[in-house]
Amino acid sequence: MAQKFIYNFGDGKAEGSAGMKDLLGGKGAGLAEMSNLGLPVPPGFTITTDVCTYYYEHSWKYPAGLKEDVGKALERVEKILKMGFGNSQNPLLISVRSGAKVSMPGMMETVLNIGLTEKTIPGLIKKTGNERFVYDAYRRLIQMYADVVMEKANGFEPEEGQGVREKMERSLAILKQKRGYSSDTDLTTTDMKELVVRFKAIVHAVLGIPFPDNPQEQLWGAIGAVFTSWEGKRAISYRQIHDIPGEWGTAVNIQSMVFGNMGDDSATGVAFTRNPATGEKKFFGEYLINAQGEDVVAGIRTPCRLTIEGSKEKASKNHKAGKKTAGHYPPLQEVMPQAFDELVEVYKKLEIHYRDMLDIEFTIQNEKLWMLQTRVGKRTATAAIKIAVDMVKEGLITKEEAILRIDPTSLDQLLHPTIDRKAPVKDLTRGLPASPGAATGRVVFSADDAVTWSESPNDDKKAVILVRNETSPEDIHGMNVAKGILTARGGMTSHAAVVARGMGKCCVAGAGAVMVNYEKRQFKIKDTVIKEGDWITLDGSTGRVILGKVKTEKPSLSKEFEELMSWADRSARLKVRTNADTPKDSVIARNYGAQGIGLCRTEHMFFEGDRINAVREMILAEDETGRRIALNKLLPMQRSDFEGIFEAMDGLPVTIRTLDPPLHEFLPQDDREIAELAAKSGISAETLKVKVHNLHEMNPMLGHRGCRLGIVYPEITEMQVRAIFEAAANVMKRGIKPVPEIMIPLVGHVNELKIQADITRKIADQIMKETNVKISYLVGTMIELPRAALTADQIADVAEFFSYGTNDLTQTTFGFSRDDAGKFLPEYIDKKILRHDPFQVLDRKGVGQLIKIGVKKGRQTRPKLKVGICGEHGGEPSSVEFCHEVKLDYVSCSPFRIPIARLAAAQAALKAK
Amino acid sequence: MAQKFIYNFGDGKAEGSAGMKDLLGGKGAGLAEMSNLGLPVPPGFTITTDVCTYYYEHSWKYPAGLKEDVGKALERVEKILKMGFGNSQNPLLISVRSGAKVSMPGMMETVLNIGLTEKTIPGLIKKTGNERFVYDAYRRLIQMYADVVMEKANGFEPEEGQGVREKMERSLAILKQKRGYSSDTDLTTTDMKELVVRFKAIVHAVLGIPFPDNPQEQLWGAIGAVFTSWEGKRAISYRQIHDIPGEWGTAVNIQSMVFGNMGDDSATGVAFTRNPATGEKKFFGEYLINAQGEDVVAGIRTPCRLTIEGSKEKASKNHKAGKKTAGHYPPLQEVMPQAFDELVEVYKKLEIHYRDMLDIEFTIQNEKLWMLQTRVGKRTATAAIKIAVDMVKEGLITKEEAILRIDPTSLDQLLHPTIDRKAPVKDLTRGLPASPGAATGRVVFSADDAVTWSESPNDDKKAVILVRNETSPEDIHGMNVAKGILTARGGMTSHAAVVARGMGKCCVAGAGAVMVNYEKRQFKIKDTVIKEGDWITLDGSTGRVILGKVKTEKPSLSKEFEELMSWADRSARLKVRTNADTPKDSVIARNYGAQGIGLCRTEHMFFEGDRINAVREMILAEDETGRRIALNKLLPMQRSDFEGIFEAMDGLPVTIRTLDPPLHEFLPQDDREIAELAAKSGISAETLKVKVHNLHEMNPMLGHRGCRLGIVYPEITEMQVRAIFEAAANVMKRGIKPVPEIMIPLVGHVNELKIQADITRKIADQIMKETNVKISYLVGTMIELPRAALTADQIADVAEFFSYGTNDLTQTTFGFSRDDAGKFLPEYIDKKILRHDPFQVLDRKGVGQLIKIGVKKGRQTRPKLKVGICGEHGGEPSSVEFCHEVKLDYVSCSPFRIPIARLAAAQAALKAK
Repeated sequence: MAQKFIYNFGDGKAEGSAGMKDLLGGKGAGLAEMSNLGLPVPPGFTITTDVCTYYYEHSWKYPAGLKEDVGKALERVEKILKMGFGNSQNPLLISVRSGAKVSMPGMMETVLNIGLTEKTIPGLIKKTGNERFVYDAYRRLIQMYADVVMEKANGFEPEEGQGVREKMERSLAILKQKRGYSSDTDLTTTDMKELVVRFKAIVHAVLGIPFPDNPQEQLWGAIGAVFTSWEGKRAISYRQIHDIPGEWGTAVNIQSMVFGNMGDDSATGVAFTRNPATGEKKFFGEYLINAQGEDVVAGIRTPCRLTIEGSKEKASKNHKAGKKTAGHYPPLQEVMPQAFDELVEVYKKLEIHYRDMLDIEFTIQNEKLWMLQTRVGKRTATAAIKIAVDMVKEGLITKEEAILRIDPTSLDQLLHPTIDRKAPVKDLTRGLPASPGAATGRVVFSADDAVTWSESPNDDKKAVILVRNETSPEDIHGMNVAKGILTARGGMTSHAAVVARGMGKCCVAGAGAVMVNYEKRQFKIKDTVIKEGDWITLDGSTGRVILGKVKTEKPSLSKEFEELMSWADRSARLKVRTNADTPKDSVIARNYGAQGIGLCRTEHMFFEGDRINAVREMILAEDETGRRIALNKLLPMQRSDFEGIFEAMDGLPVTIRTLDPPLHEFLPQDDREIAELAAKSGISAETLKVKVHNLHEMNPMLGHRGCRLGIVYPEITEMQVRAIFEAAANVMKRGIKPVPEIMIPLVGHVNELKIQADITRKIADQIMKETNVKISYLVGTMIELPRAALTADQIADVAEFFSYGTNDLTQTTFGFSRDDAGKFLPEYIDKKILRHDPFQVLDRKGVGQLIKIGVKKGRQTRPKLKVGICGEHGGEPSSVEFCHEVKLDYVSCSPFRIPIARLAAAQAALKAK
Repeated sequence: MAQKFIYNFGDGKAEGSAGMKDLLGGKGAGLAEMSNLGLPVPPGFTITTDVCTYYYEHSWKYPAGLKEDVGKALERVEKILKMGFGNSQNPLLISVRSGAKVSMPGMMETVLNIGLTEKTIPGLIKKTGNERFVYDAYRRLIQMYADVVMEKANGFEPEEGQGVREKMERSLAILKQKRGYSSDTDLTTTDMKELVVRFKAIVHAVLGIPFPDNPQEQLWGAIGAVFTSWEGKRAISYRQIHDIPGEWGTAVNIQSMVFGNMGDDSATGVAFTRNPATGEKKFFGEYLINAQGEDVVAGIRTPCRLTIEGSKEKASKNHKAGKKTAGHYPPLQEVMPQAFDELVEVYKKLEIHYRDMLDIEFTIQNEKLWMLQTRVGKRTATAAIKIAVDMVKEGLITKEEAILRIDPTSLDQLLHPTIDRKAPVKDLTRGLPASPGAATGRVVFSADDAVTWSESPNDDKKAVILVRNETSPEDIHGMNVAKGILTARGGMTSHAAVVARGMGKCCVAGAGAVMVNYEKRQFKIKDTVIKEGDWITLDGSTGRVILGKVKTEKPSLSKEFEELMSWADRSARLKVRTNADTPKDSVIARNYGAQGIGLCRTEHMFFEGDRINAVREMILAEDETGRRIALNKLLPMQRSDFEGIFEAMDGLPVTIRTLDPPLHEFLPQDDREIAELAAKSGISAETLKVKVHNLHEMNPMLGHRGCRLGIVYPEITEMQVRAIFEAAANVMKRGIKPVPEIMIPLVGHVNELKIQADITRKIADQIMKETNVKISYLVGTMIELPRAALTADQIADVAEFFSYGTNDLTQTTFGFSRDDAGKFLPEYIDKKILRHDPFQVLDRKGVGQLIKIGVKKGRQTRPKLKVGICGEHGGEPSSVEFCHEVKLDYVSCSPFRIPIARLAAAQAALKAK
């Protein structure tokens, strides 16, 4: 490995650039780019992700030459700043920060103020004339370093409350209590000095070694800790949730320190160039006077807004939430107008340069602005759409870019129901609207409890709301399973808010009225006590916290959404249909842009109302005559459903699948229900039990179902086809255009399809003659068995269309039962045997190969064969992309996933260009 | 359709030949060939199978021109014989017989003596001077024609006992009783005339129409009846059993009559050129004096042997069986030496010409020999092998031809156990050894009862012996399910004997002491009454009928068998291994020629003795530690089994599959058993029920099994691998060479195999170090999921061999559960959706395609990849042929199927040349 390990930046230029994220990580690339733009960036350098990879591949060893290169880079910084690292007169302090290709907020480690030692402290005091600041910086260094480097990176796993960090926090709290302070800013120089002594004692007591007083040791300890944190538990968990490959590794950014905690002319803050929740084109951020960066992000002190307008908004919100705003600083725009103006200039330059909404971090040291980070900002789906559409109108990006910028999965957020405004509710309090959407669930107070409840076999217990004073990266697994998150502390850029938005999960943050008591597992708002297991509802779009379950209502979609989707539809080649079994679902789906029905499961109709009685009569009939009598009762019911569906889909194709599930699914299984049915049907319970027993199957998934039913009982197919065509004839008389496509399920051999297609065509002809109406229709099949895909050339002889049933095809290709795979699939994902659950993300190598074979062979026989997919994968973006690649004609998915599929289809087409 | 419908023969030449079976049927081709050889064949002509096909494709219409062509062909016969069809002075009589490509004995129709009318009868009497003969021929015509043409072919389905045939038989029996006759030959001319009147009356009474008195009407009626009988119930059933395609159709043979019933200088008989049961090179046949052909085949009169030697053998056998031989005619060799000598000359000429053992039919009319049929004779497997090996030695055929002549499936007969000679048994009587093998079962008296009993859910009731006075084609379905067949009447060429041999089923025929009483559902032998449901045992090789169940013993194989198999092995490329789980099976398999073990299922070892307790302890353990304790108990037991297997397979590869079935298979399911286990294990029944419930799966076939077990519980794989390698090390110290091949089941993704292969190699290394022994071994996988075949290129990266598990691969490719498919698979076969049960005969188009893909991709990655098959198909000839074609290295099957697989492998190689 004889390559470049280090990329320098600062002093108006840089070796790297924004395009080098793979090598420099997001932060490193951003610092380089800002340097090149001539923005005020404290000089420093980035150690590449390649070094991280090397480190892990060589048992935690660095490549030869790294030490020397770091030394040289550090010298360069010293030269630029005319300071010396470890120099007693003019000491250079540095920060060491992680920086992966994509942002993993709070997942990895940072150490600030490196270089402070017994030797350099006096010099720095002399130079700054601010003894309190220097000891504040030093106690922060000890706190961070002891926790991150000396404890975590060395693999110490202290018990709850026994770690150095917690002990130091307690020590600080005790001191403040003793002195009667309410804020860290009240701490005096003497206090800081005392803390330094106490913290060092804690380090020694807990870890058995002294705090290092050597700058080089501090530096390399911090570098090692950053690399080590890449394979830390939190980071791995975050990567799994966000599907980030472990091979990427992290870069390390070493940068000269600037200080926001040098007094009241210093500050630190974070900002978004536009509103990350709504997308509104307004500079949006928060800052703290006399603080270091981590104070803002950690959510310990509630920060202030940057702009006067933002400050007013916040005051009004706080007022509504019953919060007092006294004691807060006014907006930066007022406090340091010059630095603010510079910041505005910088952000505008950056936004135009990056052609996107950015997330920036800055520090003001003695009124001078320094830029510490810039990256493309995370945003809600609503914001993403608004920003993309606005930027097209501003001429910043093209429509195609706008389409490609939206993560299709994120649209899910927009389609989640919101709280029914008319529902009578009891508002408990109001917090910050940190992540939109509404959620109802039972209260839990820890991430572990959230997981335990969510895995309850009792459906009524699964939905949980995680309530915390504030969340931390340790809570990720709990946040992941919770329906929503409520925190008592923290702002819009707090951990809870950022992570929840990323997950598309509802979050209300900083609801100060919430008094959490972890021990009693309850929280109080004024006099109301809410215990673990009680129901609450959150409205992440307004910040409301509501007692009990609340009815939710369909969200209305923004005009920007409609605009973007119309662009998407113009780009897409794949059509998007819906899986819908009822007229109601069909209407919803059409509103979301469905271009037809790809899968109408007729059996779902069998369960409605008292239809199940006729179905059971059919199953229990002794012979064909008996079955026909029962089927005749079902006929008018099915017909009327089909009429409703044809009406909703007027002019669009409606793919109707004939009966699929094994008949035993329609019979009761336990003794009580059997007794009830016996009483109702007049058939003895004994006889019923025998029938149920006879229908029992060892492997119902591979049993007597699908077309196998229609083959043994052709009268079922006949009735269903009759219902479809009579419905079609009826609606045609009302001026509606039905486009029925009859789909035969679970075909494995062309002869099965032949028999069922013959019945279908015979009955269709008959009804067209009876009603004197001409109905165009197709007969096709599901391809959901490997044999069907493998013999698609023969099957296409009969089938006029294929629809891949990827749920079943995944089951048979892998030999996985969806009902049972829960016993080992999670282990498969953990052990990285499979990257994704194949029931969620289509397995391209196996299932996808069968799809390709089927398409190729099918179109060999019938070049214009229409091919679609109707498994769950039809609404999953990477699967949709695959469907585009293999030249399917359409995907079909549940109504709420249609926008996702439409966008994914457009992206697939654009990417393929 | 402007083609040749008719092929003439007779008069020393023919238009057809032996090679034209497809078009002329077996009988027509044989008649043509004999004519060409200058043998005495009564002239006639054959209507082709194409006409049959046309007939069915055109709603039972004949092609234009057929009538004229038949007329012309008949004229030709008239000219040769100088007789006239319907001529009152010199009337020509003809027969109309079916004749499919392969013989379907008794399945289709024949009408003799066509052309007898009120007008032609006087002329024939005048010409033959034999009035009794003419009326005998006439009453036979009426009997056959009324039954076959007027009743059956017209779709009449009379109730039991109400058909014309039965009424006529009763009428004949009454007349004989009235007159005190014991045999048909006692009937006088007056009796015959009276029968004619009675029979005609029956026809009119039952069918409402008169017997046709027009020769042309008779002729076309008979032709139509033959074509119709091709789609008759019996014929369809026979074709299904023998796997004969319905599309073949039948030819119709129209031939001038010769008469074996013209007095005591006339006779009719059938013969085999060698013994069809043993293969001995001795002319073997039976005849009846003064009879027509159907009398011999129908088994109504017990016929005599042809040769003096055969007659003595029979007398000795009859003597042993306590039968009297008085009243029988002496052998043909004595009675008509000249005709006999001519017959011998003919058969020798034919055998050399056909180079095979033949089945011939002849008639002697007034001492003149006429040949009516020749075809390759059916034979037992024993006979087939002896004949083939003998003919090689006689220089008639090559070794390759000998190998290709044996139906591999037929070898099954040879491997069936025979009666233990030392078992104390009670012989009831002795019949003819009509079809070899031994069978024990419960007595039933009708084909329907045989089917009912055989389908009993009670295993103890399934084995049945069908006992009949004589069998007829209507009994086929019962014979098919019976373990053996016993008849009171009929000879070695009777229906029962011929059909049973074809089925490879044990049969004792013509056991005259058996007195059947259908009404009482019992039979008597002297004073012993055997009732329906009683157990008897048949020995088809000796003719013994034994009371009760008798122990059976392994058959010893003939030297010809060994010789043929050694030739086969030299021709085969595919190796044949066995599926064996125990040392005992391994020894048996090696004796049958297994070249290693292709599948050793380790879980079968788990059920032996009290091992199941340790297995259950393992399953019920709370954690890995508990599981390891239980596994340590299993280790020595598995190890000792493996030692025995390695010993039996010294020097040959032994493929051992790691644990495959889902764990719940090892736990009790019902409450009583759970209570027992609770008492034994000290775990509460409640806890056990929860465990059983938790392990329950919706679709166990697709559940937590195969390598998925070893991935979640690696300690199981570790124990099994340890047992294998410790066993290998132990036997090596005894000078035995173990060749273990570790096979990981149910792999769908290469990563699954990787994990299990790593464990295997780690443990193997460890044990080789511990024992200081070097063991060569392979690690490979079953390919039994579609995904494994589709990604074989990746899997072969890790796998050193593949073994196709075609049972599971068939399940997943078709989406059929073997346990449940019984509900619809029979219907699939009936409706011709599938030609074969895919669990018996490998589905080439689907499953076979996956096998091909897997082999190709696997060898792309690893060109020398060893590939085999270990599903049930490994012992099925057509599947073995496929395995050869796709270049597998071996097949593996159950021990008793090894010879079948060896022969099939040789045939595949020879056919591919």
